[in-house]
Amino acid sequence: MKQFMNEEFLLTNETGSRLFHDYAANCPIIDYHNHLSPKEMVERRRYQNLTQLWLEGDHYKWRCMRMNGVPEEYVTGNAPEYEKFLRFAQIVPKLIGSPVYHWAHLELQRYFGINTPLSGDTAKEIWDETCEILSGDGYDAVSLLDKMQVKALCTTDDPADDLQWHRKLAEDPTVPFKALPSFRPDRFLHIDQAAFPTAVEQLGQRYGAISDWDSLLAALSKSLDFFAESGCKVTDHGFIRFRYAQGGDAAAVLAKVLKGEAVSEEEIAVYQGALLRFLAAEYNKRGLVMQLHLGPIRNNSPKLMKCFGADAGGDSIGASTDPFLLGAFLGDLESSNALPKTILYNLNPADSAMLATMAVNFADCGARVQYGAAWWLHDHIRGISEQLDQLLETGAISSSVGMLTDSRSFTSFTRHEYFRRILCNKLGEIVERGEYPCDMEALGSMVQDICYRNAVKYFGL
Amino acid sequence: MKQFMNEEFLLTNETGSRLFHDYAANCPIIDYHNHLSPKEMVERRRYQNLTQLWLEGDHYKWRCMRMNGVPEEYVTGNAPEYEKFLRFAQIVPKLIGSPVYHWAHLELQRYFGINTPLSGDTAKEIWDETCEILSGDGYDAVSLLDKMQVKALCTTDDPADDLQWHRKLAEDPTVPFKALPSFRPDRFLHIDQAAFPTAVEQLGQRYGAISDWDSLLAALSKSLDFFAESGCKVTDHGFIRFRYAQGGDAAAVLAKVLKGEAVSEEEIAVYQGALLRFLAAEYNKRGLVMQLHLGPIRNNSPKLMKCFGADAGGDSIGASTDPFLLGAFLGDLESSNALPKTILYNLNPADSAMLATMAVNFADCGARVQYGAAWWLHDHIRGISEQLDQLLETGAISSSVGMLTDSRSFTSFTRHEYFRRILCNKLGEIVERGEYPCDMEALGSMVQDICYRNAVKYFGL
Amino acid sequence: MKQFMNEEFLLTNETGSRLFHDYAANCPIIDYHNHLSPKEMVERRRYQNLTQLWLEGDHYKWRCMRMNGVPEEYVTGNAPEYEKFLRFAQIVPKLIGSPVYHWAHLELQRYFGINTPLSGDTAKEIWDETCEILSGDGYDAVSLLDKMQVKALCTTDDPADDLQWHRKLAEDPTVPFKALPSFRPDRFLHIDQAAFPTAVEQLGQRYGAISDWDSLLAALSKSLDFFAESGCKVTDHGFIRFRYAQGGDAAAVLAKVLKGEAVSEEEIAVYQGALLRFLAAEYNKRGLVMQLHLGPIRNNSPKLMKCFGADAGGDSIGASTDPFLLGAFLGDLESSNALPKTILYNLNPADSAMLATMAVNFADCGARVQYGAAWWLHDHIRGISEQLDQLLETGAISSSVGMLTDSRSFTSFTRHEYFRRILCNKLGEIVERGEYPCDMEALGSMVQDICYRNAVKYFGL
Repeated sequence: MKQFMNEEFLLTNETGSRLFHDYAANCPIIDYHNHLSPKEMVERRRYQNLTQLWLEGDHYKWRCMRMNGVPEEYVTGNAPEYEKFLRFAQIVPKLIGSPVYHWAHLELQRYFGINTPLSGDTAKEIWDETCEILSGDGYDAVSLLDKMQVKALCTTDDPADDLQWHRKLAEDPTVPFKALPSFRPDRFLHIDQAAFPTAVEQLGQRYGAISDWDSLLAALSKSLDFFAESGCKVTDHGFIRFRYAQGGDAAAVLAKVLKGEAVSEEEIAVYQGALLRFLAAEYNKRGLVMQLHLGPIRNNSPKLMKCFGADAGGDSIGASTDPFLLGAFLGDLESSNALPKTILYNLNPADSAMLATMAVNFADCGARVQYGAAWWLHDHIRGISEQLDQLLETGAISSSVGMLTDSRSFTSFTRHEYFRRILCNKLGEIVERGEYPCDMEALGSMVQDICYRNAVKYFGL
Repeated sequence: MKQFMNEEFLLTNETGSRLFHDYAANCPIIDYHNHLSPKEMVERRRYQNLTQLWLEGDHYKWRCMRMNGVPEEYVTGNAPEYEKFLRFAQIVPKLIGSPVYHWAHLELQRYFGINTPLSGDTAKEIWDETCEILSGDGYDAVSLLDKMQVKALCTTDDPADDLQWHRKLAEDPTVPFKALPSFRPDRFLHIDQAAFPTAVEQLGQRYGAISDWDSLLAALSKSLDFFAESGCKVTDHGFIRFRYAQGGDAAAVLAKVLKGEAVSEEEIAVYQGALLRFLAAEYNKRGLVMQLHLGPIRNNSPKLMKCFGADAGGDSIGASTDPFLLGAFLGDLESSNALPKTILYNLNPADSAMLATMAVNFADCGARVQYGAAWWLHDHIRGISEQLDQLLETGAISSSVGMLTDSRSFTSFTRHEYFRRILCNKLGEIVERGEYPCDMEALGSMVQDICYRNAVKYFGL
Repeated sequence: MKQFMNEEFLLTNETGSRLFHDYAANCPIIDYHNHLSPKEMVERRRYQNLTQLWLEGDHYKWRCMRMNGVPEEYVTGNAPEYEKFLRFAQIVPKLIGSPVYHWAHLELQRYFGINTPLSGDTAKEIWDETCEILSGDGYDAVSLLDKMQVKALCTTDDPADDLQWHRKLAEDPTVPFKALPSFRPDRFLHIDQAAFPTAVEQLGQRYGAISDWDSLLAALSKSLDFFAESGCKVTDHGFIRFRYAQGGDAAAVLAKVLKGEAVSEEEIAVYQGALLRFLAAEYNKRGLVMQLHLGPIRNNSPKLMKCFGADAGGDSIGASTDPFLLGAFLGDLESSNALPKTILYNLNPADSAMLATMAVNFADCGARVQYGAAWWLHDHIRGISEQLDQLLETGAISSSVGMLTDSRSFTSFTRHEYFRRILCNKLGEIVERGEYPCDMEALGSMVQDICYRNAVKYFGL
């Protein structure tokens, strides 16, 4: 029996172990998609305890707490901070086999040097020790990232954002990494949602009044210029359902919505198709990468939505993406020489093979389209392993840009280590089974490409 | 090489082996969903031979026989009983790797103490030995269940049923377990199917004439009262396609059908949506659990349907369930504080991750909605393992209500053992790989919760 | 650590190793579906180098080259042959874990006796050695097949084809195997595609002018007679989307298309449904097997389509197949006693369980409908393993007709070895885990059935 989460965690073979320790472990981190707050970095926010760090905004943990009987008062409610932590600690032993279990312990180990398994019994001791450590040097938001060798990170930002915090970070010579904005125009794509009018209003205030299709595109284009000037390298788009239409009159659809009229599913598809084609071409001109996150169902629980709002943990895996619509979109961009570098992420694992093989159709002699890392509720050992298998089977592994955190937490960067261990172990297994020669130098270089160098090149960092 | 199906069957690691033998093996059984006949229990039916026990109604075995070339005469036809058994025995060696292979041998071992592999060569010897044993004490329907430590079981019953056999079982002090009815209103949901008018007629005779929507609901409500009085703890619903609509005039749809008029897909969705909301709220009032079985295709072979009728083995895995419709249903119930405890089962494995993560959206601080055990054609080692992985990955494993047989056979209760071995082995593997501390007491208690105690609490037994 | 791709490649247990070496390895090959050129066989085409053999038409390799940054000039362009080979060799080490990696090395080993891993460093040496070997005896198209013990193969042919090359092969006593045509009427099914009018024209020229539904069926029927006389045993059909309608006026739809009018999705379904029912009944009369290949997305990249045409490597995994439509088709055939032997293949792995279980619905006491081998982009270790698991779990493994190459390359027949190793290893694992008795004779016979004998019987060879 292996010791609990020791240095050989997730490593079951000698070759994989060497690949991890000798090549992967010390690679810097490029975290090209997350939801970190640039304001907290500028302010070098400090965290007094694990509740602030772990339970303020982490819906993964909230879901586990609710499923294991913790009352909402201790989840997102007003219970005292230690009480919340204690309730979480008490259910941690129930989370056997979940990524939340592994992440929590990796974070205790790497950020705090604590190897004790967390439980109700150890909660007080771990609380006290971490509070003490957090009060010392090296535990503000910027230092926590630096501790993990983060060299660049990309947050998630609205086109109407003034990027003041990113600008401040860029001007601060003591920040030891690039903290770049990402352009996420979701509020403008989802023309049928409540947030659309406000989004248009806010964008108009910064970039000129928006009264029609042309002025919308003009404003988005100016915003993109501003993002690019501010260091933006990557964009992002979330789709509950990926809708797409090739023709139609998007301007007319927008006009209806601006007048407060309802639009049909077909009209939404016309509008989204046209806006996506416009945006993708603009990204391509500026060398920005386009990320497509496909297939969740959001705000599924009315109770959570009502009490808490979005991102409360009431989101889950939704429907499959239509390959004909997605293929038509990518094909239309390719036809007009407007296909940007693109990363496809699926939430429903039933889509993995479809997306992984579609990416290769648009390789364009250089992995222009990639199949992205295991995402969100699929971000566990099997999910990561499945994404890697898809990359291996399609011959795409060597050009992969590897992992990202997609996280709101400043201590979630051990997720890169989690990924790297699984990657190295898998490559090691292939070698140990005699399915690939044991050329450690070539394999080690491939691992470093995937963990670090490919992302530097792909995103132009 | 491990010995054939010995005490370490499916156990590949020491920790898993200890968890099974020390904690799981002796847990009583709560079998909260099956198709057993309460009449056979009341009558303490005896079985003269394995053909009566195994081949009278088991479409799993029929499918295997047909696929391996056995003529229908020996499957569901009029061949002599021993000839049928012999033909089955002859193809058993071809069933390597199938659950039917494992179930048959587990049953020979546990019920008859026979460890010989079944084949054409051993058929006669095993036939004779089992006939002899079956003629002795302890092999009637009730004793077979008692032998497996069944403490409670829930059959599957129509709302129009008079539950006379369940009543007799409840009054009989010599029955050493609870044999409870389950409310399954499928005939009333599937308004477009041929069985609907008869169902309405039969229910009306017991609970007052049904002429419209209100009288239908009144009769179903009375039936539910009677079921609850008769010990019912759980309800069940089968869907080929899960249809759901939020609005519409269900009463008008019913009126059309009662007049013999055809209804559209949309009208069926309106009717089913309204009836499901009504029923779920009634379940919730009475503390009954709602089971949803999603995604088979039924009676797919016209030849089998014509010669034999339903449940002939012509059913298979059907389409994926629409997460937006299912999510809307659960959300509507939650909004109106009418969401009962609910278990979601999928037949198409492409839906596993979707359903397992959706359940957590509605955890309601206590695993109110659960992702159910591997079902029917997915009820094999990989299927069971996949369901457990989903529970582990979502942090839901510790609150799971475990396994059920879904069976028509009185000797199918070794399926609980099959599940328990896979469960223990998987938990053991996690520990042995160093991904969880080796706390046998905590793990053993978790195993017993999943195998027994959680079901007692969840169903209120 | 196992040696690189030695005789125990893919074999991880003793029982599996014995099954492969003692039973599977020497079985002859029946390759009942491929895209080989009968003309190249008649002409006993010789290949001067690995570029001719490997890179002329293999879109698997092209996809890998593009994904790993090789310019199109070296993929399908006009670069010199050695330059193309060198560019491929250079990216081979990047293909760790892909079937392309294993296939290339199996082919080097089995056809050329070369055990050196291919890379940029070894490219020249391997090029020279293989050029030398290819110039010797035993390396023409026919000899390459004979070297692998091919006993029968089925190519893929259009109903309008004159089968002159097949006829010549049949008359040539020095061809040591049967090279049979397969009837693939895709151009006639896809009434909405550009190739339809030409197809009708060409078929009409051979079998009588086609002016309406009746004359189309008459011509197809004559073509089928000619194919059957020419040794055809199997037919094939490819579907992007499987459309099917039970009623409607197919003759009217055809009339519209012949007049150059557009038809709707529903009309296409009516036409395809009627034509499929007609063809299937004709197959059944003649004892021909019907293959259905379901679920790719084709010609997804407009750039590749424009520069190169179809089969350029711009195809990938498409949508799931609708089980209700497919089930209705098979059911309608069964109802009218017209269901031919049928093999179902899926490209989207999300359909595997659905198709594998549906096949059993139509077993007709003899595996009439089968779930086919892992196909195309799913043709890797996990994909093959998944298909076998489905067969094992449904009790269908013993009647399976095993593997096929689906290939355009005369050296791709090591794919049968690849399959056989995975099959034997999987059966061996089951035995070693104690889940099946170690009866080597029975297991060995089952393996030989799957690898060879079942196909001989099923296809009537």
